[in-house]
Amino acid sequence: MRVAVVGATGAVGSTMLELLRDRAFPAEELVPFASERSAGRALDHGAGQGLVVRALSLEAVEGFDLALFSAGSGTSAEWAPRFAAAGAVVIDNSSHWRMYEDVPLVVAEVNPEALGGHRGIVANPNCSTMQMVLALAPIRDRAGIERVVVSTYQSVSGTGQRAVEELMEQSRAVVAGEPVRSPEIYPHQIAFNVLPQVEAFRDGDLYTTEERKMMAETRKILGEPELPLSATCARVPVLQGHSESINVETTEPLTAQACRELLAAAPGLAVVDDPAAALYPLATAAAGRDEVLVGRIRPDPSRERCLNLWVVGDNLRKGAALNAVQLAELVVERAAPRAKEPAAPPAAA
Amino acid sequence: MRVAVVGATGAVGSTMLELLRDRAFPAEELVPFASERSAGRALDHGAGQGLVVRALSLEAVEGFDLALFSAGSGTSAEWAPRFAAAGAVVIDNSSHWRMYEDVPLVVAEVNPEALGGHRGIVANPNCSTMQMVLALAPIRDRAGIERVVVSTYQSVSGTGQRAVEELMEQSRAVVAGEPVRSPEIYPHQIAFNVLPQVEAFRDGDLYTTEERKMMAETRKILGEPELPLSATCARVPVLQGHSESINVETTEPLTAQACRELLAAAPGLAVVDDPAAALYPLATAAAGRDEVLVGRIRPDPSRERCLNLWVVGDNLRKGAALNAVQLAELVVERAAPRAKEPAAPPAAA
Repeated sequence: MRVAVVGATGAVGSTMLELLRDRAFPAEELVPFASERSAGRALDHGAGQGLVVRALSLEAVEGFDLALFSAGSGTSAEWAPRFAAAGAVVIDNSSHWRMYEDVPLVVAEVNPEALGGHRGIVANPNCSTMQMVLALAPIRDRAGIERVVVSTYQSVSGTGQRAVEELMEQSRAVVAGEPVRSPEIYPHQIAFNVLPQVEAFRDGDLYTTEERKMMAETRKILGEPELPLSATCARVPVLQGHSESINVETTEPLTAQACRELLAAAPGLAVVDDPAAALYPLATAAAGRDEVLVGRIRPDPSRERCLNLWVVGDNLRKGAALNAVQLAELVVERAAPRAKEPAAPPAAA
Repeated sequence: MRVAVVGATGAVGSTMLELLRDRAFPAEELVPFASERSAGRALDHGAGQGLVVRALSLEAVEGFDLALFSAGSGTSAEWAPRFAAAGAVVIDNSSHWRMYEDVPLVVAEVNPEALGGHRGIVANPNCSTMQMVLALAPIRDRAGIERVVVSTYQSVSGTGQRAVEELMEQSRAVVAGEPVRSPEIYPHQIAFNVLPQVEAFRDGDLYTTEERKMMAETRKILGEPELPLSATCARVPVLQGHSESINVETTEPLTAQACRELLAAAPGLAVVDDPAAALYPLATAAAGRDEVLVGRIRPDPSRERCLNLWVVGDNLRKGAALNAVQLAELVVERAAPRAKEPAAPPAAA
């Protein structure tokens, strides 16, 4: 089996490579792709093994069984159909293909059956959506969901390495009592601040693209196109790990204790919920962990059949690279049947 | 007029002194009180004026017209009734007296009429509550409120100077690549992290005291004892300024634009709401400002008659010192009538 990792030098791409190795993914050959600038560079792949970065070209896409993409929407829009046309199953971490009707949008533990319908491209959900859906799915299955109101506390690593550097440099300046240089990545200083903007406000929309993604992707993954959701996404000065304050209204009554047991038994989740002992999910604790952490599970006193949850996940890991690798594993395991015409890009949703 | 400021060396107390000076409060004499340790210290009060810090004693409380307290609940519980018995009107920033039935809990712009019923002690609301109520009151007056779901992003300065130092020291260590020392103020590292705990979990309660305060105090200030509210309070690595993601369900329909106009015309608020131009309330922009900032005003697509708001206020200023000074001004202005028996501490709520 030949596997391509496109965007291999980025934070998510390098985590993909690490996970493929650590989870002993059955790849005979692993080929990292990145920009022209990085081509020729050798990536350490453990055990003295080096992987040489290649640039994308029409010839280079030939002969792959799988291609994991984390290289931005533009690259995915252009190159995912080419890998697919050449016979690979593409697992794409960008937002580009997620809402296309014939592209499955899959959380490994939640809707693996959706993989069956792919036509060469499978989409990996948005990081904030991923961790929320992991917690919502068992609740939906048990008690039904009427409505979700979520506010996020998102780390900077989702934006990329330059955002991490910007936060660190600004933090250094503030601690040293120096003026903070004009921000380059975010519209405002992120160090010691909270920005109620994650991604862009498009075409005068009052919701950001991140908020729109959380609402639309959650509906698609849960297969509930009308599910009422309200999202407010904020960026906080955290390096890794997104936190979420989730208010969920269920159809049937569900006690906090029943919810706790339900989520503790659900795959991909770890319940950390002993507030009296100061045990609850933390971004610093979630970073580097595969599981999404859930805690502060409690009844909302303001309305019947409502619960509050605090959900924290590693945005680079389960929020991106881990789920992509899990989907690759599922594709291999299930040898998911594939429709006939792999070459044509899927029709717009 | 003789005015005491109790807790004058703390962050809120020193802001109180600064505001009394800057707003030209008509005090003939201003006496700062603090712990024994600080007694004798001279505080710069501008224009070459020095104020000498005194320690509290039974003799020292005599002869004041007003006493502004920001010295912790224990000090307020013990000393506020003594100042009141000696003839002062006490404006207390601690949580101790807030929920007593015969202690008015007042936001200057929202329910100044409640001052009329005081019996020597007036309570200043919790910082998170204060800024939220400023935004909710005009909405309630116009359209009625059915329910509020709020998630907070609170800065460390509310905890005190040592928390500010802890955040700065931890940030310095992380930036320098050094290990972070065990936290002393918070149960976990606050630098580059989010703690879903503000104040304590008492007696196995699943809500923190801060969350309880937000719910109970909002009801008392708005005079709606049954108002359904759900609060999730989180601490973020921000020095000054609390941010809040507020979801409000109204009784009557209210468009985002009508809400924007309503809040822009309301006292104590400044609407900052042009997201396409990256203009929205920020903690760094609110710090040092008197107004509470409101933005990201938009309809919640998940339910009829629901709006989302982003509200940011300076927790030391409007959230504490400024409102206390405004209340002092109102007391003087209105010479609020006082009940007969000032000596007895108010009955428990």
